[in-house]
Amino acid sequence: MPPFERHLFICTNVRPPGHAKGCCSEKGSEAVREAFKERVAKLGLKGSVRANAAGCLDACEHGISVVVYPENVWYGRVTLQDVDEIVEEHLVNGRPVERLRIFK
Amino acid sequence: MPPFERHLFICTNVRPPGHAKGCCSEKGSEAVREAFKERVAKLGLKGSVRANAAGCLDACEHGISVVVYPENVWYGRVTLQDVDEIVEEHLVNGRPVERLRIFK
Repeated sequence: MPPFERHLFICTNVRPPGHAKGCCSEKGSEAVREAFKERVAKLGLKGSVRANAAGCLDACEHGISVVVYPENVWYGRVTLQDVDEIVEEHLVNGRPVERLRIFK
Repeated sequence: MPPFERHLFICTNVRPPGHAKGCCSEKGSEAVREAFKERVAKLGLKGSVRANAAGCLDACEHGISVVVYPENVWYGRVTLQDVDEIVEEHLVNGRPVERLRIFK
């Protein structure tokens, strides 16, 4: 089945409450990852796009962090409200969502 | 800090015992991921190489599955014994380990 045309990794790392770095999980990354997964399935992109959970992507201060490979496009402060735009603009139409990009 | 020169994702997905697809976790993928992490740190590659845990990479029949981005090089049936070779040959010297590659 793989390689995928676009392979998303959403940080779902969990740190203990009160940890100085915080974590993407406490910002709601599991729900974000579910939303990506559902949207991808709904648009019939299964097989060409995959939305994976991942451990800490080392971009904690920008969390919720998402990376799209093989393009190497990174997104920060991704919320549930951003999922449809990323899927439709970037994953379907090939135009990364500039306002959410980090590490450009 | 990111983007990384090479970003590894090691499937650490867990399925219930007896599941028809099996899972990379029951094949020892957590230990493989730890070994990658330690080797990367020991060789001073932290910052340029990252070894992340990931959910199911949809390559279950080839597990333990590993993908290296942005190159999009996939490895299957990775064992603890393969970690040093992948790190030294591929991640340091830039030569993917052909005998372990899948989806070429």
